[in-house]
Amino acid sequence: MRRYAILAPGQFAENAKTAHGVIRYSSDETVAVVDPSCAGRTVRDVVPYLESSAPVVASVADALRFAPTALLIGTAPKGGKLPPEWRAGILTAIASGVEIVSGLHDMLGEDPEFAAAALQHGVTIWDVRKPPDVPLFCGSAYDVKAPVLLAVGNDCAVGKMTVMLELARAAREMGSNAEFVPTGQTGIMIAGWGIAVDRVISDFATGASEQLVLQAADRNPEYILVEGQGAINHPAYAPVTLALLFGCAPDALLLVADVKRTSMETYETPTLSYARLVELHEELCATVKPAGVVGIALNTFGLEEASAAEEIARARAETSLPADDVVRNGAARLWKAIAPKLVKRHPLSSKAVA
Amino acid sequence: MRRYAILAPGQFAENAKTAHGVIRYSSDETVAVVDPSCAGRTVRDVVPYLESSAPVVASVADALRFAPTALLIGTAPKGGKLPPEWRAGILTAIASGVEIVSGLHDMLGEDPEFAAAALQHGVTIWDVRKPPDVPLFCGSAYDVKAPVLLAVGNDCAVGKMTVMLELARAAREMGSNAEFVPTGQTGIMIAGWGIAVDRVISDFATGASEQLVLQAADRNPEYILVEGQGAINHPAYAPVTLALLFGCAPDALLLVADVKRTSMETYETPTLSYARLVELHEELCATVKPAGVVGIALNTFGLEEASAAEEIARARAETSLPADDVVRNGAARLWKAIAPKLVKRHPLSSKAVA
Repeated sequence: MRRYAILAPGQFAENAKTAHGVIRYSSDETVAVVDPSCAGRTVRDVVPYLESSAPVVASVADALRFAPTALLIGTAPKGGKLPPEWRAGILTAIASGVEIVSGLHDMLGEDPEFAAAALQHGVTIWDVRKPPDVPLFCGSAYDVKAPVLLAVGNDCAVGKMTVMLELARAAREMGSNAEFVPTGQTGIMIAGWGIAVDRVISDFATGASEQLVLQAADRNPEYILVEGQGAINHPAYAPVTLALLFGCAPDALLLVADVKRTSMETYETPTLSYARLVELHEELCATVKPAGVVGIALNTFGLEEASAAEEIARARAETSLPADDVVRNGAARLWKAIAPKLVKRHPLSSKAVA
Repeated sequence: MRRYAILAPGQFAENAKTAHGVIRYSSDETVAVVDPSCAGRTVRDVVPYLESSAPVVASVADALRFAPTALLIGTAPKGGKLPPEWRAGILTAIASGVEIVSGLHDMLGEDPEFAAAALQHGVTIWDVRKPPDVPLFCGSAYDVKAPVLLAVGNDCAVGKMTVMLELARAAREMGSNAEFVPTGQTGIMIAGWGIAVDRVISDFATGASEQLVLQAADRNPEYILVEGQGAINHPAYAPVTLALLFGCAPDALLLVADVKRTSMETYETPTLSYARLVELHEELCATVKPAGVVGIALNTFGLEEASAAEEIARARAETSLPADDVVRNGAARLWKAIAPKLVKRHPLSSKAVA
């Protein structure tokens, strides 16, 4: 078990999905958050839906008073580069014997200054996004016995991981053994295993997705719930989405959509309608292994109750699919609606590899 | 200018598309091919459509008699691993001061034994597939002035590179300045620049595709012709295909199809009809930047003349698009048919990045 100090200077309130995910879902404890822009308050004061009274402090040095065992980089900046002004804080933590946990594309363990300091102080650096060597996709995922449900989205950062974690919890509470499969840095930090598929060499991204499903299957779950990535019409990240769509060999898809999003996060490409998203994903799956969208999980964060209900009703009407906001209304109802639809499907060929 | 010895033991006749591409299209000369299974013959004897009288020899030592300046790894094995039995020949070449050129995923320059030998003998190792650092996709490709034509295919290894090289040559012979953009190892060896997009980290594969188009645009061509990769329904490589489809921001697509292929090379997933391939690519492009398929280049290799003509007529009838085999019939006719359709298209948003 780790005791986390989370580094998110200037970004904890609004732009720290890694921090929020770990605080909400990890079994590791967060003892402090470093963000001078809201220092002196508690986590709950700054982000009300995070039920934590951990203090927000101004610096790593201040956070050390709460005896963290690890410093976690709590944001996922575009492109995954380390902001240079964060170096000093990281070095302070290392000098105090505190482990570093990072999901950046920049590998902190390969940074000469951090590596030397870590060696000197006997500290480990866990670069969560560092991919293992994986084989090419070979079709072994087609033989997995448990139905595989993959989250797809109307954009990146809409709540795909959150929805799958909530559904897995609801399933377990109803007595079903559902295994959550992390495919990105925050999910890996929460679950303690996984591969950041966006960091894998393109040729091997489907292979990495397949290995994740095979690893989950080794635990003999009843259901496999895979965190999705990106969006199929995202101008930059769509290839990662497609890698999961083919590599995980899903039997069913869950559409996760932020109802407020009209264009891609930090890009201007417009989002697609729910109906179009359903069609597009199903058409692609139909070329390799058919899979249908079985439900819609909406992110209605910030909306009044009545508006949220309207959005949920609209999604149901547009697609004739079960739809709900699993954070607002709990995940039990959506899980009950989709679980009966999670049945194994066959690929177009019995094996991918001839 | 290099003088190549090409290493393709046991594979030159049938399974050495890198060797064939370099011999046919590179301005560098091939002075010998190493393949004991057909040693004693000439390149033309073994592969009639390659108009080269270079000898095929049994070993790298034999090839050295023809004074090569570089040893080129002439095959692209699945997964890109170096067959261990090839190590001795590579070390022989290095010991003789011969440069190594490789398109494998395995980076030969990072192999301790090869690196040490190269240092000792003052030899360079060009790992063609080693990707440069590239930024995330940002939408700059939308501003490129020349129309961008991207090849898409009914499978990998169907002739996308060959078709684009032939079309670029035909365009130039008709007085148009058409720039070929290499996106894979063989294309890079032929053109002397490019990025192997399949080797780029998934998150950056669209960014790499964009950089390739921007680099081509710097040369102020009238047309930009991008070599495609994989296939949109390939169970393993589809993410690379999608990276090019979004990242290159094409204005038009050319469908390249091997008429004999009924399932994916080394995979059993069935190929799609021409009509379905046209629809699927156009639907995906329509979500970010619309682009239409403007023609079909068929690979009818090995068919009798009459059967080839039938296949070409069938493709035209199925899609109402110009179709031809540019290797069999020359590329001028297809180029004349598609060039008027190569006009700039607008993305759904004027800029990708908000």
